[in-house]
Amino acid sequence: MDALHRSGCPINLTLEVLGDRWSLIIIRDIMFGNRRHFRELLQHSEEGIASNILADRLKRLMERGLLTRSDDPTHKQKAIYSLTEMAIELVPILAQMGAWGRRHLPASEELSIRAQLLEEGGRPLWDDVMDELRAVHLGKALPPDTPSVLGRLTEAYLEVAARNRAGEA
Amino acid sequence: MDALHRSGCPINLTLEVLGDRWSLIIIRDIMFGNRRHFRELLQHSEEGIASNILADRLKRLMERGLLTRSDDPTHKQKAIYSLTEMAIELVPILAQMGAWGRRHLPASEELSIRAQLLEEGGRPLWDDVMDELRAVHLGKALPPDTPSVLGRLTEAYLEVAARNRAGEA
Repeated sequence: MDALHRSGCPINLTLEVLGDRWSLIIIRDIMFGNRRHFRELLQHSEEGIASNILADRLKRLMERGLLTRSDDPTHKQKAIYSLTEMAIELVPILAQMGAWGRRHLPASEELSIRAQLLEEGGRPLWDDVMDELRAVHLGKALPPDTPSVLGRLTEAYLEVAARNRAGEA
Repeated sequence: MDALHRSGCPINLTLEVLGDRWSLIIIRDIMFGNRRHFRELLQHSEEGIASNILADRLKRLMERGLLTRSDDPTHKQKAIYSLTEMAIELVPILAQMGAWGRRHLPASEELSIRAQLLEEGGRPLWDDVMDELRAVHLGKALPPDTPSVLGRLTEAYLEVAARNRAGEA
């Protein structure tokens, strides 16, 4: 193995790219929250990511081929981040991590509903999610009138969040 | 959310437990290499884990409920590490990470063959692997004459390794 990598094991290589506590959090927010600007990723962060860590991880994810950055045509001074095909294909890993975390760790109902739907939907749903992400991030065309699966996941989340707020009121 | 966790998102919680560059490497070695003693984990490490890091991560994995330690009945002075049910259920995440790493990163053939077989076998194979791990680590009985899937994965690995060594000679 070359000096760049600890070993050629595919699990090890994946951990070398993604094995820190923030990289997959950022990809999750871009993927499921459609947060495409630095400021959104910073201000809406559930985990309270620090500005310097966010900047560092975005840079690293670009260097490693998981994100691209371009000028946002609607906001002249803002950069917009997009997932690459390599990052989009992380959907099954994130779905399995969500399923495992929901089962074994103290996950909140509100932040678990999307993980639950992804788990229940299984591979066919993950494929639909990836196709929609390819449309959003890579500009690949979807068949007309394809219903938005990401929209459905977000609606389910907002519904649970609203119900919980009503319960608290 | 309590102060212990950054958020209640199940993906975040999973990363809080496993989001470092070594924890899943150790679980992989115990799971697929059946390395149960400290010395085996240290000396056979493909990635050259340092002794102090290995000790720290084993301790942390026990505290977090992924490993248990007991006295090895065959070696009086050696502790033996076992996976818990929670750790065994990481098989689908590790399988997806292996599949992704194999596709997108410079994985070596020798260290990829198990990932390839896991990917091709899909969910039914992962279930068999988990049942066998429950037998090995938790003492749950398997039906008599169940063929060893972990043995099959290891044989495939050894075959590729031997073929590559023959090619080099």
